[in-house]
Amino acid sequence: MRRIYVIATGGTIEKVYSEQTGNVQNLDSKIDRYFRLLRLPDAEIAVTHLMNKDSLEMTDADREKVLTTVREKLAAETAPVVITHGTDTMVETGLALQNNLHDLRFPIVLTGAMTPLGFEASDGLQNLTESLLAARILGPGVYVVMHNQVFPVDRVRKDRERARFVWK
Amino acid sequence: MRRIYVIATGGTIEKVYSEQTGNVQNLDSKIDRYFRLLRLPDAEIAVTHLMNKDSLEMTDADREKVLTTVREKLAAETAPVVITHGTDTMVETGLALQNNLHDLRFPIVLTGAMTPLGFEASDGLQNLTESLLAARILGPGVYVVMHNQVFPVDRVRKDRERARFVWK
Amino acid sequence: MRRIYVIATGGTIEKVYSEQTGNVQNLDSKIDRYFRLLRLPDAEIAVTHLMNKDSLEMTDADREKVLTTVREKLAAETAPVVITHGTDTMVETGLALQNNLHDLRFPIVLTGAMTPLGFEASDGLQNLTESLLAARILGPGVYVVMHNQVFPVDRVRKDRERARFVWK
Amino acid sequence: MRRIYVIATGGTIEKVYSEQTGNVQNLDSKIDRYFRLLRLPDAEIAVTHLMNKDSLEMTDADREKVLTTVREKLAAETAPVVITHGTDTMVETGLALQNNLHDLRFPIVLTGAMTPLGFEASDGLQNLTESLLAARILGPGVYVVMHNQVFPVDRVRKDRERARFVWK
Repeated sequence: MRRIYVIATGGTIEKVYSEQTGNVQNLDSKIDRYFRLLRLPDAEIAVTHLMNKDSLEMTDADREKVLTTVREKLAAETAPVVITHGTDTMVETGLALQNNLHDLRFPIVLTGAMTPLGFEASDGLQNLTESLLAARILGPGVYVVMHNQVFPVDRVRKDRERARFVWK
Repeated sequence: MRRIYVIATGGTIEKVYSEQTGNVQNLDSKIDRYFRLLRLPDAEIAVTHLMNKDSLEMTDADREKVLTTVREKLAAETAPVVITHGTDTMVETGLALQNNLHDLRFPIVLTGAMTPLGFEASDGLQNLTESLLAARILGPGVYVVMHNQVFPVDRVRKDRERARFVWK
Repeated sequence: MRRIYVIATGGTIEKVYSEQTGNVQNLDSKIDRYFRLLRLPDAEIAVTHLMNKDSLEMTDADREKVLTTVREKLAAETAPVVITHGTDTMVETGLALQNNLHDLRFPIVLTGAMTPLGFEASDGLQNLTESLLAARILGPGVYVVMHNQVFPVDRVRKDRERARFVWK
Repeated sequence: MRRIYVIATGGTIEKVYSEQTGNVQNLDSKIDRYFRLLRLPDAEIAVTHLMNKDSLEMTDADREKVLTTVREKLAAETAPVVITHGTDTMVETGLALQNNLHDLRFPIVLTGAMTPLGFEASDGLQNLTESLLAARILGPGVYVVMHNQVFPVDRVRKDRERARFVWK
């Protein structure tokens, strides 16, 4: 049984539709329900619900909190880490991690979604599935994993128009 | 083969998630895709895409257009009519139909959804399914059909808090 | 709050795929999970899991049991009854009910599915949705409700080739 | 744009439910419909529908055909290969490939499913998603990829009771 840490920070992947307001928002975390749709007989997924924010609203203090949490996990047990995150500032958080974490022995994978989990045509479950696999087989480093692509975090940017990540 | 007219006017049931804006909006009509998920071996569904509006933005002219379209359909062939509509002013449109259409020989059924078709926990396909059945078995009159309930249009109001319709 | 009795007897609608045998079979009942996908704010669904059989294997004693259970329900509280049933002998059971139940004050609706609930292209949830609505609005009698059609039980037969019910 | 070859041979992942027989069988290939559910902006999936068989019925000649097809693909363009296959003899086919293909420059990934694509609780789309990602990041070799696990083909066996693959 291999442990994989998951740190949930919010973003589109966790957004829900509110019948009262008619908007999609980061209200309750729903990622656990989607992990239960996957078969993971040899993985122990340890989820930390750190915050539930649109990534455009994440502050430096929030990013510091992500860094601290990753450090705690890696101190407790060296195992891969998957971070679910809004796509707009995912790269910024990833670079902060890369700049502050040294001698990594496992990969840190950032992922998210263009359309919330459970909405028609959502890419959320695909990205979660890919990230959990990438967490097991990639070498040490900080990566963005989405849409069948793996990017080292210092080589990627979001292409907002096309709703995907591209090499930079 | 029994014909059922469907007049699509928009509302939450047809909203889609926009990856560019992060909002749900009435952009393209998607109701036809959902009809194809149903087995209707003895029904001919004739859909008119009349408009695609949030029902809070529907004007008197829009309601007039709905009335005219229903009249045209009933003149062409006497058959039941299902109208998909935003829930906020569904009753208003229904009352306008009831006040202006006399000697109905078939039911006119208004329906919609609290959560868009295809989003997790959506009530949209349930309401479409119920409305198509109600259209076949109800007597003449104007009704709201949703959530396993059938209301004559002059006896119903939306309960916004609880996201459902109730007797008035 | 209106009560609707549901009597589950098995049939294709409840079949599950067995990973050990590679077959679909009537093992555990799954109908309750699917009722939870529907919004029924004004209905109290009282489910009796009577048996879980392929309807080709139902015996006269089984049909007697269905009849006895319907009688018990109607004695306890007069309310509509939905019976989920295999399609191959659904009409036979329905006729037995019609011949033995007199002075009905509510409808008895038989339904089922051509493809099990939860399998791609299943008609199961559509048929459940339709039957629960039909149970509320049909007059007294015994009916088969599937695929947007309502048949009095003595006027219907299964068309096996086309996987639907037709008038007889 | 990176090419990934897919060779479809059948197995549970492609089985469909037949309403006429009530069985699940390898009739029409459905894998393409499921690829369309994935976002693959940087991958060109080139699918070859080689056969559609329960893997217990695959013969030596069939395995020879798989080997020949892989060779053709690798000769045309060196790119990773994903083979969808019944789980019962997946390892046997994988070992035949390993024994006959030398100097691989890309991974060959075998995958399948315990429950057919599109059936409730299916692991099919998860396994396809994982295999397409594994195809991009694994080193040269022949692997089985399923359920968040990656096995070199000579170190794996199916555990039928638990419906999963395990190390041997």
